[in-house]
Parts: sequence; structure tokens; C-alpha cells
Amino acid sequence: MINAITSISPPTFPLLATATESEYAPIVLTGVLLSLVVIYIASKLGGELSRMLDFPPVLGELIAGVVIGASALHLVVFPESGAIASDSVIVSILKFIDNLSPETLTSIFQSQSEVISVLAELGVIILLFEIGLESDIRELQKVGYQATIVACVGVAVPFGAGTAGLMLLFHVPAIPAIFAGAALTATSIGITSKVLSEIGQLKSKEGQIIVGAAVIDDILGIIVLAVVASLAKTGEVDVANVIYLIVSATVFLIGSILLGKFFNKSFVAIANVLQTRGNLIVPAFIFAFFMAFIGNAIHLEAILGAFAAGLVLDETDKRKELDEQVKPIADILVPIFFVTVGAKVDLGVLNPLVPENREGLIISTFLIGVAILGKIVTGWSVFGQSGINRLAIGIGMIPRGEVGLVFAAIGTASGVLDKPLQAAIIIMVILTTFLAPPFLRLTFGESQKQVESAKQVKQADLAR
Amino acid sequence: MINAITSISPPTFPLLATATESEYAPIVLTGVLLSLVVIYIASKLGGELSRMLDFPPVLGELIAGVVIGASALHLVVFPESGAIASDSVIVSILKFIDNLSPETLTSIFQSQSEVISVLAELGVIILLFEIGLESDIRELQKVGYQATIVACVGVAVPFGAGTAGLMLLFHVPAIPAIFAGAALTATSIGITSKVLSEIGQLKSKEGQIIVGAAVIDDILGIIVLAVVASLAKTGEVDVANVIYLIVSATVFLIGSILLGKFFNKSFVAIANVLQTRGNLIVPAFIFAFFMAFIGNAIHLEAILGAFAAGLVLDETDKRKELDEQVKPIADILVPIFFVTVGAKVDLGVLNPLVPENREGLIISTFLIGVAILGKIVTGWSVFGQSGINRLAIGIGMIPRGEVGLVFAAIGTASGVLDKPLQAAIIIMVILTTFLAPPFLRLTFGESQKQVESAKQVKQADLAR
Repeated sequence: MINAITSISPPTFPLLATATESEYAPIVLTGVLLSLVVIYIASKLGGELSRMLDFPPVLGELIAGVVIGASALHLVVFPESGAIASDSVIVSILKFIDNLSPETLTSIFQSQSEVISVLAELGVIILLFEIGLESDIRELQKVGYQATIVACVGVAVPFGAGTAGLMLLFHVPAIPAIFAGAALTATSIGITSKVLSEIGQLKSKEGQIIVGAAVIDDILGIIVLAVVASLAKTGEVDVANVIYLIVSATVFLIGSILLGKFFNKSFVAIANVLQTRGNLIVPAFIFAFFMAFIGNAIHLEAILGAFAAGLVLDETDKRKELDEQVKPIADILVPIFFVTVGAKVDLGVLNPLVPENREGLIISTFLIGVAILGKIVTGWSVFGQSGINRLAIGIGMIPRGEVGLVFAAIGTASGVLDKPLQAAIIIMVILTTFLAPPFLRLTFGESQKQVESAKQVKQADLAR
Repeated sequence: MINAITSISPPTFPLLATATESEYAPIVLTGVLLSLVVIYIASKLGGELSRMLDFPPVLGELIAGVVIGASALHLVVFPESGAIASDSVIVSILKFIDNLSPETLTSIFQSQSEVISVLAELGVIILLFEIGLESDIRELQKVGYQATIVACVGVAVPFGAGTAGLMLLFHVPAIPAIFAGAALTATSIGITSKVLSEIGQLKSKEGQIIVGAAVIDDILGIIVLAVVASLAKTGEVDVANVIYLIVSATVFLIGSILLGKFFNKSFVAIANVLQTRGNLIVPAFIFAFFMAFIGNAIHLEAILGAFAAGLVLDETDKRKELDEQVKPIADILVPIFFVTVGAKVDLGVLNPLVPENREGLIISTFLIGVAILGKIVTGWSVFGQSGINRLAIGIGMIPRGEVGLVFAAIGTASGVLDKPLQAAIIIMVILTTFLAPPFLRLTFGESQKQVESAKQVKQADLAR
């Protein structure tokens, strides 16, 4: 057997064959498979390392993306960030395997990048669908005015200060300034609520306000994103258009939730009638993708539709079963999003050793400052609560996480954000997510006695 | 509010806006989302309808694909089957939404088709990974010689008769003839075992032989496919190369199963150490995609690698948990494969009213005849068993199902199969899958008494 192989290998050994036209499609698939393997390994290494150091896994996935991407290893790079075929280590591996011509490699690189980008976009659609499935609308109604005010202040202050600062101090044009300002708005529910539950503060008055505000913040953030991204497409800020967009995004979200109440029953009925495999998950994805399509088609955002679809299906009896089935799909697709967001950014543009980068660095510092201070002030917007830990509420609102990354991704794809602004937003997301957990522990620890007494007050409140 | 919208809608209503360069990427996503919605709806309608009529759901998904594809509705069409942007109903919808130029539409059509094709390929990779996870190697060893002989005869006869017939009778060139002959080899485990269990014959002697042979058949079929697809790439049949390919495919499959025994423990250890979300499914996909990558990189097939990965992970303690998590992912990706295989074929090339189609029709009839007779004879290869229902065994081996479709898909993608041959294979798969269940019921029904007595003999055998 071994003799047979060695005797025939020179003329037919496939590694030496030159690719023909018909081999093009399988090579794109080879590239996609290798990219996915690299992305998954990076996401797991980063996520686990981050968890060991007591930071949220998503932070590690993002940083792992930065490491394998345009900033460092060049394993996974994209044409949008100015890379060409020969910059990509994966394309070089394909070249080694198949001995391809430069033209073929360029088209393979483009096709493969396109496919990975769409997979990442499907990942963020499913992420928002899942966030929608997990946000309980009825819970929100309980949290009440305090959370709403904290959320609105937490959106308005960073957005206003960020946009105005960029335009007036740094002379950034209106559209990118608005986009970057908007990227400062959304608080990450996941990160904050995880830290709060770790330090046993999730059910405290402060914890309830923070989580409620973070949920409302996410919804406001997605509406802001839809509006801002649509502005970016037309390229000009027209007050009438802004009003139209805010109204249409709000109407779309609230309208689909209201219409969803009727659709809910049909959905459960359909899932019960179907008897082939995927009787629940396929109809759910038809709905989520259709809503995402509508969101895109009316020039808002696909994720707005997916989020609305999640909110609607959250109201059905099938919620738990659906949650369970969406989980593995999200586990497979969502990391592609986080890692590629990291991979697409080139942190080299903020290298302090290069003099031209100085302005970008100053802008970046400014954005991070606004991102932190703009959320800390929210604690002082809480009214009628004596003895509340205002600083803890403000710090709890700091981490940006997923939605901030969605802003960065969409801003880059649409060409609105230049490289320094894009890198500044990513650094802002990394730093806010990085700083919030230890500071949250510190503030709550410092005021532990205060909290204990607040708890007693609350229990007295509940006992009444 | 309503007044505000109507007063501003003429200048800003997005449906009338002309797309700019930066909108290109979101429109590809819009097209992908809409295609997926159409594909999922078709798969569920077809699958459920097929189940109601007592046929396997996969048959309905395939026929639904034919209906929405190049043969009829043109909802989902592909450049490979000669379609251009204006042939696609989905692209026309995108054009209506965004008022795009013909050039933009062409590139959107190509990108979108590429993405859907890769999703379908990921679907078939996961399908084979799942089949691997479900095929128990130890079970196979029990079925023994009878099943092995039935499997080998059932691969050799249709392959030999099909290839020789196409070359000698119809003067088809060697490579397409071999490819079409190979497409006749694999029996579908799923369909046969489902029908057998429905009529209570799964545990009969005939049932055991059929299922065992179908499992071996699938493995042989995948090896044949890897060899034949590789031949198709080089474009010539070289005996030394054929031997090299058979040896390398077999070594790859058996080698990975043997090495897998060591890898198994590390895999379970890794899954146990990881504590972030996706701790089981992401390592499993890293392994499956890496094996698929290797399969592609050594110029065999990605699905061979995925199948081997499934066989390996089937041996771990995590099998059940993994099975459960792969299911929803397969439910979402596998239908894309079945529907697009149907959508890519143009049954119009076999329209009997067009005189030029006559040869294609005759070839098609010949292939279907070989496909049926070549499997029926396998019943008579069973030796040393008196009173066994040989016809039932032969008929049980007829349905082709998934692996036959994989042949058609790969043959089309590589350009080996021309349109009539491709359509003939699809019709062969549809007809064999369609005919086997009723005939199986009939033969087993007719010989019910014979079977009863055989059962008694078997029980006596076991009692000994």
C-alpha cells in the first residue's frame, strides 16, 4: 500500500496541482472553514482567559479578535479595513495548499471575507433576537420611572456631550460626530447584571434601577442606532428626516410588539401543528429573519427587526423551549460577530509613537472621558430616594458591551467612521467594560453598611 | 405625528432613494435574509406536506426547492445554473426597494448567491457531522458479513452498470459517466429505517440486514464520492491516481477514527474545563470544521472530514448532550442544502415536449432503471439464509436520499455534470425515495406470514 502511494505521488500529488476554474468554489469553502476554526479558537481562548481574570467573556472575545486581526497577527483580515489578499495569513495558507494565481487569490479573499462578514451579521441578528427573547416587557413596567429617567439621562448626556464635543472641539463633520456620540449611549445589560449578581446586589434598590435602566437603554440605543445609521446613508442631517426616522423606528418597534400580541397565538398554533424536525426553531427564524429583512428594507436596521421579533416571541408559552434551541445557534454565530469586530479594527492608528496619530489619541481620550462621566452623572438623576448609592448606579451604567460594538461595526461598514474614530470607539468599549466590574465591587463594598440599611428599608417597604 | 410624516415624506421617503456605494453591504444582507425566509418557508411547506402523504420530509424539502428554483418560480436561482440577476425574483424585490442600477444588482446577486451556496455547504457539512454522530461503529460490527456483502453488491452493481451503460450505450465521457454511476451507490439510512420501524420490521432479520447495509453503504458512498470528486478536479482517470485516492480516502477515514480514540479524552477534558457559553458545541465545531478543512485541503471532500469528526465524537460520553445541541443548528442549516439542491436543478431540460430533450430523457430513464434494479439484486447476494425475504431486502436498499443529493450538488458545482445528467440524478433520487416506502410496505405485507415464520426461526436461533 505504502509503495503504491510513493510510486505514484510525483505526478498526482494534489498539493502540487494548479487550481482550475471549477476548483474555485471549494477553495472559498476551504478558506471559510479555516477562518471559522481560527475565529472559534480565538473566541474560546479570549473568553475563557477573560473569565478567569473575572472579566466578562465577551471582552476576551473582542480582544482576541483584535489580536488575530488587522492590528496584530493578520490571521483574519477584511478588505473594508484596507487589507489585500496577500495580507491575509489564511489566504497565504490557501496559496500554499493549491498554488493559486494572484488574481484567483484576490477573488477568493473577497468572496471569503464577504461570507464571514455576512455570518457575523447573522450573528449580531441572532444576538439581538436572543436579547429580545430575554428582555421581559412586563418586568420593565415594574421598574418604573426611576429607571426610565436614569436611562434617558444616560443616553442624552453622553450623546449630547460626545457629539457637541467632537464637532466644536475637534471639528469632526456632523454625521461621524453624531455616530460616535450615539455609540456612547447604550449600556450592556449582560455585563452589569452579571457583576451585580456576583456581588449579591442584583435585587438591591440600586441593582434594580441599574438593570431596568440598562434594558431601557438598550432599546433606546437600538432606536438611536437605527436613526443614526439611516442618517449616515443619506449623508445629511435634515431635521424633518430625523423626526421621521425617530417616529418610524419607534412605531416599528412598538407596532410590532402590539401586532405581535395577535401573531403570538398563530405562532404557537403553527409550531404545534408542524411535526417535522425544527417545528419550533424554523418558524421562529422565519419570523426573526423576516422582521430583520423588513428592518433593513425600510432603511432602519436588521437588528431592530430581530430585537422586535425576540420581544414578541418572548410573550409566548414556547419561550423557554425556544430559548434553549436558540442558545447553541447563538453560541456558534455570535462569537463570529465579536471576533470580527475586533479583527476589523486597526489599533495601529492609535500608536502613540507615530506623531500623526496624536489627534486620534486625543479624540479617543475625550470619548472615553465622556463615556465614563456621562454615565456617572445618571446616579444624581434619581429623585426622591434618600440614602441611595448614587455613585454605584452611575458606575453600574458604564459598561457598553455588545450594542456599542454594533455601532462600531455598522459605522465602519457604512464608511461613516474613519479608522481613528472606529479604533477610539472600540477602545472605549473595551475600557468601559474593563473598568466597570472592579469599580462596581469597590463602590458597593465601601457602602456595604449603607446598602444593608437600604435593604432593611426596602424590606420594610415591601412589608407594608 | 401622522401629519408630520405625510408632510415630510416626499423628499425623504427611503423607498425612493437611490443606493450609494456604502449601501451595498446591507443590501446583500437584505437579499440573504429574504432568500433564507423563502427557503425556510419552502422547506417547512414541502416537508410537512410530504409527511402528511406518508413520504419522508426530505423529499418534500427537495421538491419545494425545485418549485421555488430554476425550474418554476425563480424565487431562488443561482449563477451556476446560468441565471442572471434579472431572473431572480428576490433581486427584483431588492431592485424595487432600493432602485438600484443593473451593475449593482449583478454584483449583489453574485454575492448573495455565493453566501447562500456557502451556507448550503455548511449545511451539508453539519448533516454529515450529524450522520457521523448517529452512526455507531460498534453497532456496525454486530451486523456482520451479510450486511457487508449486501452493501458491497449494492455499491458495485449500480456503479458498474450505470457507468458502463452511460459510456457504451450513450457515449457519455468517462468522468461524468463515473460521477453519475457513483451517484447511484449510496442508500439513505434515514428513509429506510423510518419506514421499517413504521411497519414494525426494524428488528426483523431483513430489517437488520437492510439497516446495517445502508450504514456501510453510506460510508462506502462517501469514500466513492471523495474519490470521484477528486477525479473530476483533475479531469482524467488515471489508474494509479484512483488507487491513491481510494487508499487516501480510506486511510483518512480509518486513521481519523483510530487517532480519534486518543483525541476523545482530550476533547471531553477540554469541554469540562471550559466554563463560558458554548463550552461543548464550539470545541465540537472547531474539530468538525478543522476536519472538513483537512478533507478539502487534501483534495478529498469537506464532508468526508465532517463525517469522520462525527464518528469520532460519537465515541465520547458527551455524545448525547452534543447531539442535542447540534440538532437546532442542523435544523437551521441543513434545509438550506436540500432546498438549494432542488432550486439549482432545471427540470425544464427534461421536458418531453421539446424534441432535443429526448436523449436526456432516455438517459434519465436508464439511470432510474439501473438505480432500482441494481439495488433489488442485492437481496440475492444474501447467503445461507433460508426463508428470507430477498425482494424486501432489495427494495429496502432502493431509496437514495441525502448522499445522492450530495453527489448531484458536488457534480454540479464542479461543472462535471451537464444539466440533463444533473436533472436525471435529482429525478432518480426523488423517484427512488418516492417508490421505496409503498413497495416496502407491499412486499413485507405480502410475505407477512413468511416473515412471521422467519421471526420464529430467529427467536429459535436466539434461544439456542
